[in-house]
This record gives sequence, C-alpha cells and structure tokens, in this order.
Amino acid sequence: MQIDIANALSGTARPGVSEEALARLDERVGPAHDRIARGLADREFGYTALGLPERVDPDRIRETVAPFGRARQVLTVGIGGSALGATTLTDALGLAGHVAIDNVDPVLSNRLFERLPLQETVVHVVSKSGTTAETLANFLCVRAAIDEAGGDWTEQTVVTTGQDGPLREMADRHDLPSCETPAGVPGRFAAVSPVGLVPLALLGGDIEGVLQGGRDAVAGLSGSLFDCPAYAYAAICHALERRDAVTNVIMPYQESWESLGEWVAQLWAESLGKDGGGLTPVRALGATDQHSQLQLYRAGRRDKLVTFLAPRDRPHVAIPETDREGVGYLGDGDTTMGDLIDAELTATEASLRAAERPNVRLTFDSDAVGIGEMLVALQAACMMAGELRDVATFTQPAVEWGKRAARGLLSAESSEEADSIEDRAGYVIGDDAAR
Amino acid sequence: MQIDIANALSGTARPGVSEEALARLDERVGPAHDRIARGLADREFGYTALGLPERVDPDRIRETVAPFGRARQVLTVGIGGSALGATTLTDALGLAGHVAIDNVDPVLSNRLFERLPLQETVVHVVSKSGTTAETLANFLCVRAAIDEAGGDWTEQTVVTTGQDGPLREMADRHDLPSCETPAGVPGRFAAVSPVGLVPLALLGGDIEGVLQGGRDAVAGLSGSLFDCPAYAYAAICHALERRDAVTNVIMPYQESWESLGEWVAQLWAESLGKDGGGLTPVRALGATDQHSQLQLYRAGRRDKLVTFLAPRDRPHVAIPETDREGVGYLGDGDTTMGDLIDAELTATEASLRAAERPNVRLTFDSDAVGIGEMLVALQAACMMAGELRDVATFTQPAVEWGKRAARGLLSAESSEEADSIEDRAGYVIGDDAAR
Repeated sequence: MQIDIANALSGTARPGVSEEALARLDERVGPAHDRIARGLADREFGYTALGLPERVDPDRIRETVAPFGRARQVLTVGIGGSALGATTLTDALGLAGHVAIDNVDPVLSNRLFERLPLQETVVHVVSKSGTTAETLANFLCVRAAIDEAGGDWTEQTVVTTGQDGPLREMADRHDLPSCETPAGVPGRFAAVSPVGLVPLALLGGDIEGVLQGGRDAVAGLSGSLFDCPAYAYAAICHALERRDAVTNVIMPYQESWESLGEWVAQLWAESLGKDGGGLTPVRALGATDQHSQLQLYRAGRRDKLVTFLAPRDRPHVAIPETDREGVGYLGDGDTTMGDLIDAELTATEASLRAAERPNVRLTFDSDAVGIGEMLVALQAACMMAGELRDVATFTQPAVEWGKRAARGLLSAESSEEADSIEDRAGYVIGDDAAR
Repeated sequence: MQIDIANALSGTARPGVSEEALARLDERVGPAHDRIARGLADREFGYTALGLPERVDPDRIRETVAPFGRARQVLTVGIGGSALGATTLTDALGLAGHVAIDNVDPVLSNRLFERLPLQETVVHVVSKSGTTAETLANFLCVRAAIDEAGGDWTEQTVVTTGQDGPLREMADRHDLPSCETPAGVPGRFAAVSPVGLVPLALLGGDIEGVLQGGRDAVAGLSGSLFDCPAYAYAAICHALERRDAVTNVIMPYQESWESLGEWVAQLWAESLGKDGGGLTPVRALGATDQHSQLQLYRAGRRDKLVTFLAPRDRPHVAIPETDREGVGYLGDGDTTMGDLIDAELTATEASLRAAERPNVRLTFDSDAVGIGEMLVALQAACMMAGELRDVATFTQPAVEWGKRAARGLLSAESSEEADSIEDRAGYVIGDDAAR
C-alpha cells in the first residue's frame, strides 16, 4: 500500500495541509494509535474488527459451505454492510456468479429470479440481528421463487447471523449450514469475516489471501503517519475537513472497484457522519466520471478532496490497430487499454492539481492479498479519523430511527417515530390528476 | 409530475426556505422562464434541447434501425452523456438486453465480450465529436471481438455522431446506418434524441411515449414556480445553496432508477459546477442507502438537501407468508413489497424531517411518458437553476483540460496540459517494494 499526498499539501492545493500541520497532527496520531491498538488487544467493541484477519478461520468457513461444492451461482440476501463487503470482494477479484439483493424492488427481484438458475443457486442470507425488514422480506420471496422453480430452499441456503434472533432460529429449525456474524463488529467493519467471505468460499476465491492482506494491513500500522499510509490518509482527511474540504470524492480508477467505492462510502459515512460533522463521501468512477463530474470537481466550490484508488499494475491488453489517422495515437500497435486509463488518471490528477484542488492517490495490488490489505487499511484509517475527531466511530444511532418508523408504519404497533409521521403536512406543487 | 417542498421550508428545516423568499425568487423566475422560452424558440445553443421532443422524428430513428429487426442484445459504446441517457431509459423502462461500455477496463470488457452473444449483438457507438479516446478505443476492441466471434461488425453497427469527424467518416466509408447527434445540444441534454432513443428503438421500446412525456414537460413550464414543479425544484435548489446546503443527495426510491440518479448527477454537475459554485450531486439509492448513508444525512453537517425521486405507483407483489412470529408484520398476507419500500421512503423522509434536514419529493409516473417527462422536466429545472445563478449552463470547459492532457500523454504531440504534468513531484508514504 502506498499514498501520494503531494497534491493535498498547502504549497499545491487550496485548501491544503502544511507539513507543519501534519507534524502537529502526528503528535496526536501516536496516542490515537495506542488507543486503537489497546482496543484491538482488549477486543473492545468495534476496535476488535482489526483482529478478524487473525481470528477468522478459513477452514471453518470452507467446512460450512462444503455441502454445496463449488457453486455456479451465489445470491447474497442482505443490505448495507451485510451485502457490500461480499460484493466488493467478488467484484474486485473478478469472481463471476455472485449477485446480491440489497434493495426492495418487486420488479427487479422478479426479473432477477427469471435470470438466475434458481435450482443451482446457493443463497447466502445475512443479517446480524436477524430482524432486518428488507432482508427478511427478500428472503421470503427468494424461498418462494426457489421452491416454485422446483428447487428446495432448505437445501440451498447458508445463513450468517448472530447467536440468536429469527434467522438463527430458522437456521436451527431447518438445520441449515450457518456462520456467525463476528461479535462486537458493526456490519460495515465485517467484510473480512463470514459476512464477506462465504460467497468467496462458495465461488472458490482466495479467502486465505484476503485474510493475509488484512494481517499485513494491521502489521503496517504504526504510531506515526509518516510511516503509515493508512494513518496518513486519515490525517489528510481530518485536516482538510477542518479546512472546509467537507466532501470526499472516492474515485477508483478500475471498473471492478466500483463497489469498493460504495463500501468505503458506507464505512466513512456511517462511522464518522455524526455530531454535525464528517466528510460526505461522493462515489465516483474513473475514467467514466471525468465525463460527468470532473467539471464540478475542478471548477465548483473549493470544498472537496478527491481520493483516487489505483491498482499497482494492469493486465496487458493491446488496443487493436486503427484505420483512422485522426486517432492514430490510440492504435499505434503498442498502446494498451491500461496505458489509456492510466493516462486518464494521470491527466485527471494533473487537471485538479493545476486548479489547486486537493487530491490524494492510494495504490494497492489487485490480487486477493492486495484487496484484503485495502479493506482493512481503510478500516484502520476510518478508526484513526474517528479518534482524531473524537466521535463514536462504531455506532449508527440515526439509522435506527428510520427502522423503527418503517416498522411502526407496517405493523399495528405504535411507536414514537411512526406516530410523528402522522402530523406531516405537505406543500405540493403540480397536479396529481394531471394525467 | 409533482413536487412536495414542505420539508424544505424554513418552518421545518435548517437551513430552510421561507415562503417570502420563494415569493421574491418567483419574481426572477418569470424573466428567467422568458429567457429559456426565447432560447427554445430561437434554437439557441443548449436551450434548443427543450425542442427535441417536438423535433425528433421517431420514424426516422425506426427506419435507421430497421435493418437489424428487433435486437436481442444492444451494446452502447459511449461515455458520459453519450451512454447515460440510453442506460437511464432502458433501465427505467425495464428493457432487458441493453448494456453500455462507458469506461476503459481491459478486464471487464473482455469478460463482457465472453458473456454477450456477439454475433447477434447490435452495437450503437456514440460520440458527438467522433474523437473521444475511450469510446474509440473501446469500439476498436468491440470490432475485433465481434469479428473474432465470427460476426461482421460492419453489419452489426449503428453510429450516432456529428456531421463530420472520424466516426462520421467511418460510417460513410463502411456504409453504416447512422443518426446525427442533435446540433447545439451538449451530450447531457441529448437523452431524448437518437443518442438515447436508438437503443430503445432496437429493443422495441416506446419512443413515442418518451417524446410525448418530453412535450408534456415543456408544456408544463410556466412563469411562476408556484405553478411549475420543475421551476419550484430549481428555486429550492438555488435558495438552499445560498443558505449553505451545498450538497444535493439524489435518492431515487426505485432500483431501476439508479442510473437515472447518475444521469441527474451529470446534468447538474457539468451544467452548474462552475465559477466556484454549484450543488455537489451525491448519488444514493433508496432503500439500500438508508443502511449506508442515512446516518450522515441525518446527523452530519447541515449542508445537504435530499431529493427523493418516487414512482406514482408500484406493481402489486405480495410478500409470501412468513413462519416467523417476530417478523409477522411482513407476512400478514396482504403486505406487498411496494408497501415495504413506500414505508421505507416515508420513514426516511420523516427521520430527516424530525432532524430538521431539508428534503423534497419529486413524483413521476413509471411508464415511458412519465420517464420522458421526468428527463425533460429535470433539464428545464437545471436550465432555470443556471439562470438564477447566472452561469454558462451549457459549457464544460474544465472537462476539456483533462482530455487534452490525456491525449498529450498518449501521443508524441506536446501540449501545454501534458507538459505541465512532467514537473509533478510526489510525496509518497508507504513502501512500493513492500511486496
């Protein structure tokens, strides 16, 4: 792992961080790292997530999924942290045959069921509490669809949930293979656990590599941001937020890392979006969004940090010879598609730099070890940012309000949240009856 | 079309807009509407986009694609506005069989080629200038892949480009069916033209409906925001940006509208992200992102407007009976998946309202007419926001810098932009040779 912060320093960017300010911040990074290390050692809530790469037993996961053999198709039913980790890993590692239902949409679900080989699909249903409305509703639909297709859901389902709750009871009653969500770890920190690794195991992915990379990331943490890329990133984010760069554009320059950007956005937003602060993550994708968002990043408000995520190397795929003189530079025979997207990234960095817009580049390997390192390093960076801002990194109180309100609306049971919705008065413009 | 602005008013939200402020803004909406109407009537650059639903001839598009019959698979090769409109329309209308290559990624492109029935795939290559590097490089790869698969790209390609340029010359030389990109219309305003409608026509979609909806949207424009939902939305966005709500979360509550969110984000960012201002669009998706971003939206910095996009009705899909008492409210037999996601939306609106976070709800029909109305109404809203802020809505100068730099890097030819990259000094933390 590597970070280049040159384009975020005060000599180059406005706002920017001076090396003096970084040195002062570094005095706080030491104690904050000790706090994180202590939380890890003592298995404290949240901090213990950094211990997963050490604790998670790949053989235990393989044994659990062994009855299914090598799966042709895996369907994850979960939402938020219960689905994003698995999608991020299978996308980044190029494992075809994994899809997640992480939303409630009657139309798309039915279309998905028509497309999938339901009799051969292994369903991985994930909910820490076992009570998540969207996940349970979707799972009920998946069960029905499988049985309708002539399959048997009780033979095609593996469950990852907590020690008790409706899902656990269902797993016990139907004797389903199951794993446990890691204790003391919020979903967004659980990717490197059965939550994210079961689909990988079902598809024959390199879960040992992911765990190895996670251990490398933890081993790479140190008491100074100047030796530790993850903490350097946290410090830059923290310092820029205090200098009114309150938006963080997460921009991977590899299509297969698009879901990684979503994962980072959840990690950051849910962990640090509290007490009236926290960088707003903006999900972007290189090179596509150069043609969509770059205008704003370069010429809009000076309230943004752009975080580039780049692979260390790319496979060699030549661009075929062209018969167009005007675009000869594309088809001179030895220009590769990798050269093209690397040039796009370099050009985008430079265009932001020329406009004095702060940006940093994080570089990782694309293999399983590299992805595992990336996920855990970014979790550690998030923890450090939380320590520097002194927020409760591992809670998400604001999410719960909406959950209680939705449940209240659907059920008879009244709740403070649901009742508060009743007195809502609309101010509507436009005629509903227009059509 | 309908907008509910109750949750963005100053009595309810912080920041919020008072009705007095809206009345004052309305005095500027009248003249701004006259300006837009005059630009439309005189076919001025950009403004003329609102005339597309009237001018575009569906028969001309059908004749152009007639040689291909009803396509089983359509592959759009384009980037930014050249791809997003087509994806938005086919996704929203549930037309399976359309995919776009709108990025440069050697790995994913090759995986896509393996998956597609290349001999039966109709390729729609789109570039206004005909020189876009990513599009041309991808098209060269697609051509090679088709020929390798035993197809004949010259028999499977339809081109949409300007009156001249490399793509036009290629279309002429190989006698390919072709359409023209609309003159005087930036790509992000060209969805309701051959750029977005050709794939629809190939897949048997209702292009007349989309055009009808577009005409409805234009007919619905008026000189007062109090009679015109599109302008009301523009006024709310403008007023909130001036009150430091500088981020606009675009949150459709329908999975098939996810690409619509990306389309809106491009429209807004590229049109209004200039002169040091412009709302930063944040792409979100309901209900999924309640479990990812809502924590930040509700408890983070008070710098956000949340824009909900909701369908007027949803298909009736019952949630199967559940055997779990704990979640009985989901499976009481008559609760539908639509009830569930509607409850999630209502609960999320209420949770933001309870925290006094500004949010608005835009409601549209889900059919072709409704989607056409939505796209054109949002284009009109964007134009109005541009008038109210007095920016050059239809240019994107900051995008061009990166394009020239990338071309300079790939070719021998030196350019100011490419040369400026040479003197870049990195500040790297982390050991490249670590692994």
